[in-house]
Amino acid sequence: MGGDRAPGEIVAGARRAAEEYGIPVVLVGRPEDLPDTGDLEVIAASEVIAMDAEPGASVRRMKDSSLVRAAEAVRDGRASAMVSAGNTGAAMASALLRMGRIKGISRPAIATPIPVPGSTPTTLLDAGANSECRPEWLVEFARMGSIYARDRFGIESPRVGLLSIGEEAGKGSPFVKECFELLSGPDWAAATGSEWIGNVEGRDVMTTDVDVIVTDGFTGNVTLKTLEGAMKTLIGQLLVAIDTDDDTRAAGVTLGPALDSMVGDFHPDSTGGAMLLGVKGVCVISHGSSSATAMLNAIKVASEMVQVSMVDHLAAAAVG
Amino acid sequence: MGGDRAPGEIVAGARRAAEEYGIPVVLVGRPEDLPDTGDLEVIAASEVIAMDAEPGASVRRMKDSSLVRAAEAVRDGRASAMVSAGNTGAAMASALLRMGRIKGISRPAIATPIPVPGSTPTTLLDAGANSECRPEWLVEFARMGSIYARDRFGIESPRVGLLSIGEEAGKGSPFVKECFELLSGPDWAAATGSEWIGNVEGRDVMTTDVDVIVTDGFTGNVTLKTLEGAMKTLIGQLLVAIDTDDDTRAAGVTLGPALDSMVGDFHPDSTGGAMLLGVKGVCVISHGSSSATAMLNAIKVASEMVQVSMVDHLAAAAVG
Repeated sequence: MGGDRAPGEIVAGARRAAEEYGIPVVLVGRPEDLPDTGDLEVIAASEVIAMDAEPGASVRRMKDSSLVRAAEAVRDGRASAMVSAGNTGAAMASALLRMGRIKGISRPAIATPIPVPGSTPTTLLDAGANSECRPEWLVEFARMGSIYARDRFGIESPRVGLLSIGEEAGKGSPFVKECFELLSGPDWAAATGSEWIGNVEGRDVMTTDVDVIVTDGFTGNVTLKTLEGAMKTLIGQLLVAIDTDDDTRAAGVTLGPALDSMVGDFHPDSTGGAMLLGVKGVCVISHGSSSATAMLNAIKVASEMVQVSMVDHLAAAAVG
Repeated sequence: MGGDRAPGEIVAGARRAAEEYGIPVVLVGRPEDLPDTGDLEVIAASEVIAMDAEPGASVRRMKDSSLVRAAEAVRDGRASAMVSAGNTGAAMASALLRMGRIKGISRPAIATPIPVPGSTPTTLLDAGANSECRPEWLVEFARMGSIYARDRFGIESPRVGLLSIGEEAGKGSPFVKECFELLSGPDWAAATGSEWIGNVEGRDVMTTDVDVIVTDGFTGNVTLKTLEGAMKTLIGQLLVAIDTDDDTRAAGVTLGPALDSMVGDFHPDSTGGAMLLGVKGVCVISHGSSSATAMLNAIKVASEMVQVSMVDHLAAAAVG
C-alpha cells in the first residue's frame, strides 16, 4: 500500500517477480483496493500509514497497517523478507519493533548502494536512520556494511572508509575523530574480513577507491540527497544542451542508447533499494516513487539476501 | 606562491587582471622565483607555506610567508583584498590572525557558490572553516550569507535555508533542530532584508529554490566535495558514452560546443573561488589547481567585493 504509485506499480512488480523469477511474493494490504493480484497470496491489513505520517506514533497506533503486518509476517515466519516503497520511517519502526534488533547492534542503519560506473556500488551507511549517532555505533555500521558488501555485491574483502573532510587521521569534527579512533582498532575488520582504509571524502563516494562508507545518518542522508540532486541537475542540463538546434538534436538521437544506458546506471530504480541492516530479518526500503521495475529489483534483492543468509552473517559479525 | 600551478599560472592570471581589467594587483612572494611580472608591484616574502603544511603552526611560525604578508598588506591598507590558491587552512588562519574578526562574528565561515543552471549560484556556508559549530554561529552565517548573496549576485531578498534531512521543522539532528529554532527568530532576516525559508535538503542545493544554505563546516564540506565528485563521475561517463563508436563520436563533435558550455558552467574555474566571510577584509580562496583563468576570475570577484564595500555591509549586518 506504500509508495506514490501504490498499489498499481507495487502489485505489478510483485507479479513480475513471481512470474519471471519464481519468487513467492506475499502481498500485504487492503484486498479491496488491490488490482488483479494473479496467484499471489494476500495478507489482509485494514490500515495504511500515509507517506507523510509521523512514523513512531503511526506504527504504535495502527496495528493493522500493512507495514506492521508485513513486519509481523517476517517475525512469524510467514515471509522471509519485507519490501516497502512506503513511509521510510514507518517501515524502519515496524521492522525494528516487530522483528527486533540483532544482538550486538545498538541501532539499525540504512545501507544505500551508490552507483559507481563500471564497478560495484559503494555502500553508504547510515543513510538516514539515525540523525545523531554515538561513535561506537559507527563500528557496528562498519561490521554490518562489510557483510552487506560481501553478500550483496560479492566483494571479498570490502574496503571500509569513514566519511570526513580530509584524508588525514586528524581531520574532521570531534565526533568523526572519535569514530576514527574506534574504527582504527583492528578487531572489527579482522572479524569481518574487511579492510579499514581510514578517512574518505565526499568526492570518493562515486569512485572505485572505497567499498563501504560509514557515517552518521544525518551526514549520510545529506550526501545521498546531494548526489540525487546533482544527477538530476546534470542530466537535465545534458538534455538542454542536446536541445540547442537541429544538429545537436540529431546528435542526441545518435547518442540516445549510450546516454540511456548511462542514465539507467544512475537511476534509483536500478539499485534495488536501500536496506535496513540490524533487524532480525531482511527489510528492503524502496524509494517512494518506485515503479514496477524498481519493485521487481527490490524483491529480487530481498530474495537474494534471504538465499545467502545475510541476516545470519550480520548476527555473527555483530558479536564476532 | 600557493597552489599546484604556482607561481606561473598565478602570475599569469594576475597580469591578465591588470592588463585586461585595469585591476591594480600586488603580488606577494619570493621575487627570485617569479616569472616576468610585468608592471605589477611585488611585496617580497621569503617563506612559502606548503599546500599540506599544518595551517595554525605554519602561520604562527612563518611570519615572512607570502600568506601572512598578504594578509598584513590588507590589514595595513597596502592592498584592499587578498586572493590565494594556496593552503586553505593557512589562508584562513592568516586572514583571521592578521586582519581580525568583524565585531559580532564568532567565527569566520567559507562561503562557496554552487552553480545553478540558468540562474544565480546557491551560496553554501560554512563550506569547511569550522568542522564543529555552535547553533548561534549559524545565525551569523545566515546574516553574512545574505549580504554576500546580495553584494555578489545581486539577489535583492535572498532566500536562506538550513541544510537538513527533511523539510519539516522537526527534522534533523538535535544540533540542526536547535539551529532551526534560533534561525526562526525574525531579527536576523529582517535586519538583512532576507527571507528565512526553513529546512532545505541536499537535493535543493543545485536548484533555484534557495539562494543561501547555512550548515556546519563539516556537513558543508562533505556536501561540496560530494557535488564535485558527482560532477566528475557524470562528466567522465558522458565522455565514455560519446566514445562508444564512430557515430557517437561524430555526435559528440556536433554536441561539442553545447557540452563545453555546460561543463564550463560547473567548472570551479568559473566561480571565482570561495570567500572567507567574517574577517576585516576581502579574502578569496581559490582552489589549489587554479589556472590563470581561475585566478583572473578570483581577482575580479575580490575587486568587485571591494568596490561594493561588502566588508562594511557584513560589519553592519553582524550587529544589526
